[in-house]
Amino acid sequence: MTLTDAPLADLGVLVPRARAGDPRAVARLISLVENGSPRLPEVMSALAPHTGRAVVIGLTGAPGVGKSTLTSALVRCLRAEGQRVGVLAVDPSSPFSGGALLGDRVRMQEHATDPGVFIRSMASRGQLGGLAAATPQAVRVLDAAGCDTVLVETVGVGQSEVEVVALADTVVVVVAPGLGDGIQAAKAGILEIGDVFVVNKADRDGAGATVRDLRHMISLGAPRGPGQWRPPVLATVAARPEGIDELRAEIARHRRWLVEHDELTARRVARVAREIEEIASARIRQRMHGGLAGRHLRELAQRVVAGRLDPFAAAEELMAGLPG
Amino acid sequence: MTLTDAPLADLGVLVPRARAGDPRAVARLISLVENGSPRLPEVMSALAPHTGRAVVIGLTGAPGVGKSTLTSALVRCLRAEGQRVGVLAVDPSSPFSGGALLGDRVRMQEHATDPGVFIRSMASRGQLGGLAAATPQAVRVLDAAGCDTVLVETVGVGQSEVEVVALADTVVVVVAPGLGDGIQAAKAGILEIGDVFVVNKADRDGAGATVRDLRHMISLGAPRGPGQWRPPVLATVAARPEGIDELRAEIARHRRWLVEHDELTARRVARVAREIEEIASARIRQRMHGGLAGRHLRELAQRVVAGRLDPFAAAEELMAGLPG
Repeated sequence: MTLTDAPLADLGVLVPRARAGDPRAVARLISLVENGSPRLPEVMSALAPHTGRAVVIGLTGAPGVGKSTLTSALVRCLRAEGQRVGVLAVDPSSPFSGGALLGDRVRMQEHATDPGVFIRSMASRGQLGGLAAATPQAVRVLDAAGCDTVLVETVGVGQSEVEVVALADTVVVVVAPGLGDGIQAAKAGILEIGDVFVVNKADRDGAGATVRDLRHMISLGAPRGPGQWRPPVLATVAARPEGIDELRAEIARHRRWLVEHDELTARRVARVAREIEEIASARIRQRMHGGLAGRHLRELAQRVVAGRLDPFAAAEELMAGLPG
Repeated sequence: MTLTDAPLADLGVLVPRARAGDPRAVARLISLVENGSPRLPEVMSALAPHTGRAVVIGLTGAPGVGKSTLTSALVRCLRAEGQRVGVLAVDPSSPFSGGALLGDRVRMQEHATDPGVFIRSMASRGQLGGLAAATPQAVRVLDAAGCDTVLVETVGVGQSEVEVVALADTVVVVVAPGLGDGIQAAKAGILEIGDVFVVNKADRDGAGATVRDLRHMISLGAPRGPGQWRPPVLATVAARPEGIDELRAEIARHRRWLVEHDELTARRVARVAREIEEIASARIRQRMHGGLAGRHLRELAQRVVAGRLDPFAAAEELMAGLPG
């Protein structure tokens, strides 16, 4: 279903409703995440005991490779298994989010009236810690709301997209034939983060060559021992759809591999550590600017400019004077 | 003169020698900055009382616009005034620095044997706080070494270059005709940071149009009241050289404007505040990863993954547990 951002009552009502799967409550909580609400710590504290169940799948790739169509086809596949599915479409470069963008996401519209699917666009709004911290929180909301799988689709290829998608248990990298994909993939460091590679629009010329190129590039990458995961490269035509069941199977196989090799928890711990660090760093920066500390920073800077202090000693003084 | 990075004795010798203008001592101190030496706080503390005198001029622009030739022409001009001049060529995207790059900087070679000119390339080496913190420290070394003017030239156009050049008292933005400069300038946010704009290679076709375009774009920018600085747009041919005296005059006029409007100290305080903040943030991140705190972060992340804690509470715990 499409989530709108209608105002809702207090958190005491909102959290239980979201947990029961009320789409308006879920939408409202994600808006709180996106807007960096001061009530977030309270929200996350209430949600924490109900998280950790959802499988998180990231999809990334350059514009035009057909990520949305592929995501939509995957949603159909997961729905056929009876799963509840959440979809977060994250665009680090866009100021638009929430309901606004959903009108454009025509490829998702077949799921707009399905009560078993939550779809939400997210954009950067200067949250505490940026999208790198906000996206996992939005995933946590969908997780607590009972989604079995959360698909995080990022638009574009670049450092911030890599950061966003790195929160997934399984990262699916999507390319299309004839877009200079090889170079594209290599420069964005995407070969390192992909667990499954998909050459979508495989009915186009050059699809076979793109599959071979990718396999070759992956084989040239970091050496993989016998116990290590070797990312498969699949061909799909999401618009028909073709190859989606195979993609679903590879995602499930990667999941089993993660569990069997004790990698699932390791990945989650690493990414949560990063999230905690982002939040703490952003908090500390806020404290450096706020109130007395902000005045202190300014005064320290004045002393440095006057040659009465050096910037390292100033940084030490600033840290010592931060409110606890 | 060209600075090499020969090993030198202890700081007690190094700092007074650098202050006396010994090029090897200056080179060594900048290497300490670049390598993020643990002795930096000590170095900066010793240098602090001798800083704040140098005029800092930033030059930025896309590759190929002739920044180095322009910088070299400006150095000649300042030398003719009897000034001691420091040049820092900062390349945020390059792993090369120090003496290595200087061989390539043929346009600077006319100054290589001049004892009144220090020339140094700097690249990112993962210093504490990155180039945004390292560059002002290198400027401080050159300032303490008696440079009347320090020219900071950044290669390329982008966010990190904008950050690096923002440390200058006066920012000179260089473009060349026919490079799509307008768009180039607008997207990098360079219209906001330029105090003086230069269309170099003005003997080429389209120079007049580029000057007009830039003037037009500047007039469309933030409204400037009667007391505000209106960035001039000059035409130069640095290779001949032509227009350098006019550029020198505009830089001097901007300087006078800064002083008359109490803007010089305000700018310096703002940029030093940012530098202090970068150092403090990097320090705190180091502490989050190091020793006991690193183990604490991991343990907190495990509790979040298990649903026994939320990331905000974890961030609070992490901050509370950081070593002072």
